[in-house]
Parts: sequence; structure tokens; C-alpha cells
Amino acid sequence: MTGQLQVSPFKSPVLLVDRDKCLRNIKFMADKAARQKLILRPHFKTHQSLIIGEWFREAGTEKITVSSMTMAQYFGMNGWKDICVAFPFNIHEIDEAVTLADRIDLHLTVCSAQTLQLIENSRIQKAGIYIKTDTGYNRTGVAWDDHHLIEEMLRILQRSSKLKFSGFLVHNGHTYQARGPGQVDKIHIDSNEKLATLKDRYYDRYGPFLVSTGDTPSCSLSENFEGIDEIRPGNYVFYDISQCHIGSCDAGSIAVALAAPVVAKHRERKEIVVYGGAVHLSKEYLKLDDGTMVWGQVAGTLLNDRQGHNSWSVPIPGAWVTKVSQEHGIIKCDDIFFNQTGIGDIITILPVHSCLTADLMKGYISCEGMHIDHLSGYQW
Amino acid sequence: MTGQLQVSPFKSPVLLVDRDKCLRNIKFMADKAARQKLILRPHFKTHQSLIIGEWFREAGTEKITVSSMTMAQYFGMNGWKDICVAFPFNIHEIDEAVTLADRIDLHLTVCSAQTLQLIENSRIQKAGIYIKTDTGYNRTGVAWDDHHLIEEMLRILQRSSKLKFSGFLVHNGHTYQARGPGQVDKIHIDSNEKLATLKDRYYDRYGPFLVSTGDTPSCSLSENFEGIDEIRPGNYVFYDISQCHIGSCDAGSIAVALAAPVVAKHRERKEIVVYGGAVHLSKEYLKLDDGTMVWGQVAGTLLNDRQGHNSWSVPIPGAWVTKVSQEHGIIKCDDIFFNQTGIGDIITILPVHSCLTADLMKGYISCEGMHIDHLSGYQW
Repeated sequence: MTGQLQVSPFKSPVLLVDRDKCLRNIKFMADKAARQKLILRPHFKTHQSLIIGEWFREAGTEKITVSSMTMAQYFGMNGWKDICVAFPFNIHEIDEAVTLADRIDLHLTVCSAQTLQLIENSRIQKAGIYIKTDTGYNRTGVAWDDHHLIEEMLRILQRSSKLKFSGFLVHNGHTYQARGPGQVDKIHIDSNEKLATLKDRYYDRYGPFLVSTGDTPSCSLSENFEGIDEIRPGNYVFYDISQCHIGSCDAGSIAVALAAPVVAKHRERKEIVVYGGAVHLSKEYLKLDDGTMVWGQVAGTLLNDRQGHNSWSVPIPGAWVTKVSQEHGIIKCDDIFFNQTGIGDIITILPVHSCLTADLMKGYISCEGMHIDHLSGYQW
Repeated sequence: MTGQLQVSPFKSPVLLVDRDKCLRNIKFMADKAARQKLILRPHFKTHQSLIIGEWFREAGTEKITVSSMTMAQYFGMNGWKDICVAFPFNIHEIDEAVTLADRIDLHLTVCSAQTLQLIENSRIQKAGIYIKTDTGYNRTGVAWDDHHLIEEMLRILQRSSKLKFSGFLVHNGHTYQARGPGQVDKIHIDSNEKLATLKDRYYDRYGPFLVSTGDTPSCSLSENFEGIDEIRPGNYVFYDISQCHIGSCDAGSIAVALAAPVVAKHRERKEIVVYGGAVHLSKEYLKLDDGTMVWGQVAGTLLNDRQGHNSWSVPIPGAWVTKVSQEHGIIKCDDIFFNQTGIGDIITILPVHSCLTADLMKGYISCEGMHIDHLSGYQW
């Protein structure tokens, strides 16, 4: 660019979503679930979008997972009839749960007898209850071998005329620290074995119920689902460079990219400054094998064909977002990319964690130019 | 809480703002600027709020700083008449700049001759131009000793009938890595000396112009502003635990706290799980002196007096947010706090970085219960 302003629809940072890649990712997991005879209840916290939800529906999805009551309301009031809120139930939202449970099949997740009793004592007419179970991640949930507490909760459920035991629900978030199928499978199989003992122990007295597990790394990489009834991966619709790093996907499967305008260049440091920082990509970082911390990977300048279709390329070797502050993103790159990139160019960046980037961006633009909703940009 | 639901206005995470603390922080800096004979152009990227902006106006503020054209529009269309956009000008927003510059005194920030020439060639009628100058932070800006480039930009400005040179503008973000007044002052004074050489060299030929600097640590801690005309701190309106760690403030000056409901407790790990995670606090962490990474500091359970006034206490010793995922916050604490805290209680959390937490929360509730706007919750 030399003194003339090029008009662009990408005036400020935009989160591009590639529908074709999403559809491929959605189909991959639907096919795998079908092959493994698993119920697929995808987690919608990644995209939080009614329009993207329809892409799942077209692939056969009817049951979904969300991580807040607000998300449950968003989808429940827009045509989704079977929703699991996979977050320890927040008793302050009991009124919202009561109202929503009148309209749809609502499943709540609990990890204390006290919360369960509060739900039972409420005006709720019916709800499914998953017991949030901890098989090793140690974030939250009832320890899988705390049979005293599990029995106490199961007895409350058995006595209830309103609440139905949906099953044991696990999230093995520690697969996100694993690398490759071997490490992921180790966590996944260990957890599945613990869940199998729960099924053995309680199914006769408290069945039928489901065993529900399955984060994106294990659902992408594992073929071992013995004893599992239901999986709830979410991130796979978009994937991201953290998933690439784990080995769950290749970069070509990543379905979102931040389009960010170049605002400055610093030749002495081979750094390009973009308008696209912590309030766009998030402060989530990825530590590369050489110890470098990165906040995004550069996928070249925005590609735009004559039909107005926008897209991005494969990752540019050695070009990473190496620092973010509120609005600034700093890209370190090699000579070639530095020299071919000008002020005003639109750089595409694959996020470290697509869920958080999507939440911050509050909406998407599809490669075809369609505006796509996200709950965080919705006004109630 | 024992089986009965306590009704609460804090159903989900809320960002509380303490107006009295903000007013004290605003007054502290206004008094200091007056005493030091400095123009105070506070950075509004921290609060991004029209209502909080009025608290500044009542303390005499007329000139402000923002970090995006969108923020400039938000404030410029709501009564602010002198705004500096302290971010390398994004040429894709030239139309927005032209329109806004017709209505208010708009100052743009540039760090390349190419961008400056583009602004000069545009339909803009008038604008102030700050040259973004790098005196050591190395994020962006013209190197303070790159006189070839500085002269080139100053000559463009001198020839222009539309653009006026506002001054040299520095942000020393590396004070955020400092600890205590000594380290902060070292960075601040070194930068001020470099800026003084620019004033000496260029004032006769290109003056009058300002030298503008001043981040929250240096403006809070330093008394050395020789040669400086203008300061632009922002974070000080709220402060946060990062600023406490640097030494810029004490915990009693922190004016925002996230109110987050307790959803689970894990006695064996002395961990409390709150609804309040990465999409509320942000993923920004602080490394404590013992190497622990934290995402927030617990300031006790929400205090609520009979007049409906909400507030928080001093930080609870040893109670920190030690992990966040999308909606989960994990608090590690001692026996006493663990035992006195129940499921359903509302925990208050002082953020690591108040700017990012405010951006994510999209609005505030004052201690008196008033809803307060934030640009990120605004629908255009």
C-alpha cells in the first residue's frame, strides 16, 4: 500500500468462521459417535451460536451440552429441547431452572447432596440430574470412589418423584495437558475404567443411567469407549492451535481465525503490530516445545477471491503472536513474511483457545460474509 | 445455607464497582497532576464507561485518552470534546476518524510516515498528531533516537495545513514488570531523559508541542516529572492486584471486585469452586513471590448492609483464585475461610487486571446497586 487507502470490510478485528471446516469437523465426530454407538451430546459452550447450532442439527444433533444457565436459556428458548448444563448447579439460578425445565428436557449437574436437596425442595416439576464425577482432573465433582456421598445422592434421587438420575458425568480436562494419542488415551482409559466400576456397582439398584464423558482430545484421538454411553466434546467444531499441539487435529481443521489489521512494523525486531490483542484473542497462551509462549499462530494475510469469499492459508512457518496487550498483538516472523506484509494488510491468526476468542469477539463473520451470532453479543 | 434458597440479586457473576474508592483514586491523581503542573489526560480504556467518565469530569477532567476508534466514538458522541486515540492509527478507520474529527478535537497517534501521509491525503479537515515514541518498552512506536524517521514525520506535519503536531507520546508498559518505587522510577526517569533530548532537539523548529507519558505505576509512585507536560494513566481508577504487587496501590484502593457464587466445595483440597472463570476474570495471571500463579485474590464474602449497600472486605490471607477455566474459578484457602464459606455464598474477588475483567463483564453494578455501562456491552 503506497499512500492510497484500500477500502476493506475488515476495519477492525473480526472473527472469521469457515463453515465448510465446521461441517467437516461436525461430521467427523458424528460419524465416530455412530461407529462407536455413542450418544453424542456436543458442548455448545465453544461456539455459543444459534446459527452454528443449526449446522449441528442438520448433522443429526438433538441433545446438547452447555456450561451456564444463560446458555441453556439461549438455546432452550430457540428450539433446543434436550439440554444438559454441565456446570455444578448454581442454586441462585433455581427460578431459571424451574422455568426452563417446564419447557424442555433439562439436565442439571450436581456435585453435592446439599445442592441436590435444594433442587428437590424447589418448585421444579421435573429434571434430569447428572452426578458430576471426578476421576482424576481434580477441578470439581464428587470423587469417583466417594461411595458414601454417591449413595447419599442416589438415595435422594431414588426417593424423588421429580428428579431422574441421568448418569455419571466426567470431564477430563487434564487431557489438555497431554501430547499425542498415547498420553490422551492413558487418561481417557483410566477414567473409563473408574466409570465402569460405578456402573457395575450402581446400575442394578439405580439404573438405567448413562455414563457420560469425552473432551475434544479424547474424542478426537481415542478409539476406546468401552462402557461409555455418551460423549460431550465441544471444541472440535472449531479446534485451535492448542488442539493441534496436543495432536487432536491438524491446522487445516481449525475453523476460526481472527482477521486483524496491521498497524505498525518494526524491522529491527522483525515484529508486526496488529490491531488484535487480549480483548480479541484472550490472554490464553500456549507454550511451544522450545519454551516460547504464544498467543496465536499466523495463517497469512486474508485471502479474498473475486466472489467475495474470504479465507486463510496454512500457518506461516515461524510466525507467531508473541505478545498481547489490551488492543495490541505483536507478531514475530521471518524476513520473508515481514517484507511481504504491509501496514493496512489484514493478517489472519489462529487462536490458542477458540472458545475464549469466540466469547470475546461476541460474533463471527462467515467466509461468505454472513454475520453469525454468539451469546456474548446478545442483548436480553 | 441449609436447604432453603436465599434470594439474591447476585445470581451470576457481577462486577461490583465502589464509587467512593474510584472518586478517591481519581482525586489522588488529579491532585498530583495539579501539584506537578501536568496536564492529566486519563486513559479511559480501563473503565470504558460513560457514567464513570462523569466521575472524572466532576473532578475536572476535560481531555481523555482511549485505545481504539470505537472507544473514541463512544466518548466523542457522548460529550467528550478532546480525545487522544493512543494506538497506532489503523488506516481502515480513516472514515470514522474524518467524521469524528469534524465534531471534536481528535488526536491520532502514528508511528510511521506512511500512515501519517495517508491521514494527510485523506478528507480529514483537522487533527492533532502524536508521534508514538519508544523509549525502551519495545512494543511499538518510533525509536526515540531514530531521528531520520522523526524528522521525516515532523516535516510532513510542518507542511500540513490540516494536521498539527501534538507531541511525543510514550507508554512505558515495562513498569508493569517492576517492583516498588525504585524500579519503577528507574524506567520512568530514563524515559523522561530521552524525551527531554527530543524536546531540546525539536522544540525550536517544530514547537509548541507536548511530551506525554505516564502509566499507572509511574504516575502513582514517582515524583519525578521533569520535562513532562502531560500524563495519561488509566488503570488507577480501579487499580488491581497486579498494581498492588508492583506497589502502586494498597488493596484498599482496589475499586472493583467480581462477585461470584460458590457452587462446590472440596474439603480434601481446601478448594472452593465459584461460578466466575476465564470469561469473567480473564486469563491474565499474576506470579506471586513464591512462584504461585493466581487469577484473583479473595476479598471475603459479599458484605450487604440493611440499606442494600454491597461491599467487600480486605483480602483474606492465603485465599487466591489458583485456576480458571471457562466458567469455573478455583479458590485455594485455609481451613477458617473454607469452613465459614457455604455453597450459595457470594465470594468477592479482586482481579489481576481490572481493565480485562471490566472488558469481559460488559458492565458494572455499583455498591449502591446502580447499573453502570461499559462499551463492550453497548449495542451500536
